[in-house]
Amino acid sequence: MNKPHLKWTETGNKQVFDCKIFSVNESYCKSPAGNEPQTFTVIDAKDWAIVVPVIETPKGKQFLMVWQWRHGSKCLSLEFPGGVFEPGENPEQAAARELYEETGYKPQKIKKIGEFSPNPAIMSNKVHFFLAEDLIDTGKQELDEDEYVEIALMDEKEVIQGMGKPPFVHALMGTALALYNQESLQKE
Amino acid sequence: MNKPHLKWTETGNKQVFDCKIFSVNESYCKSPAGNEPQTFTVIDAKDWAIVVPVIETPKGKQFLMVWQWRHGSKCLSLEFPGGVFEPGENPEQAAARELYEETGYKPQKIKKIGEFSPNPAIMSNKVHFFLAEDLIDTGKQELDEDEYVEIALMDEKEVIQGMGKPPFVHALMGTALALYNQESLQKE
Repeated sequence: MNKPHLKWTETGNKQVFDCKIFSVNESYCKSPAGNEPQTFTVIDAKDWAIVVPVIETPKGKQFLMVWQWRHGSKCLSLEFPGGVFEPGENPEQAAARELYEETGYKPQKIKKIGEFSPNPAIMSNKVHFFLAEDLIDTGKQELDEDEYVEIALMDEKEVIQGMGKPPFVHALMGTALALYNQESLQKE
Repeated sequence: MNKPHLKWTETGNKQVFDCKIFSVNESYCKSPAGNEPQTFTVIDAKDWAIVVPVIETPKGKQFLMVWQWRHGSKCLSLEFPGGVFEPGENPEQAAARELYEETGYKPQKIKKIGEFSPNPAIMSNKVHFFLAEDLIDTGKQELDEDEYVEIALMDEKEVIQGMGKPPFVHALMGTALALYNQESLQKE
């Protein structure tokens, strides 16, 4: 994987935009051929966690998911729970906290199943994926004021078959499923 | 899926940043409870295509993938081919063109297998996924000047097992695999 003929080298960078969710930075990089630096634009945001919460039921496995309005796509989206890390948290803690806040469920088992760049072309942050099992329902979400999240128990099969069509519109939920499948294959 | 108690309503918006790859816009939205509008920050970029090119070989299925340097993650990444739509192209044309430019392979069969928001929380664009089969190798990539992309034929199993660990760092390649698995299940 050491391919120096493909490697670019950063010669400098500059922040060009900032808001509370992310900043935008110009990265000036020399090509592998060593030509004059080109400008690449990079979005810096916090790392976050996505959790696949699995519940065993008499009729098979179910996923605990959440309905919420998404302001980028301007539509309702049915997703696995998740959210950004808070200062001082490790990824597992962030995953368990977000799961609890959005759904009211606490996991007795939580395991990291993978880590990705959400979009390595233009984003510098990482998204961490977890499998949560043996869930205890406290019966109470911990939502912020003016936060609207509705939980849904979905059959595993319906989610696997539905990905890529509304309401399963969030690409990173597909990523989560690929890792869930990978984990299931390893158990077999 | 009609959940008016979760729906936010945009009351206005304003562009606050622009570069050649994307713009950033503030979207002012009233909550489902009708409270004073809050500000959400949204990244607008072009739609793009990701192509899963499959080659049948005597030792099983292989994926045609590409190595390239990614400036967001500042690392090498092994990915399915893809890229943004050019004006006037439909998604299938964009997918086939990007596949050819990056790899030199032309598909005789190309089929859309799903469509997602790459990140509906903060991005407004869409990413379209395709399965490409019956590939013809022209033996020649069509890269831009100072563009560095190296092709690799990877065993299906190695990619499925490797997702979420370097060099398979791009989350949307996991999404592509989830759709590829969905497609394979439908064929069975």
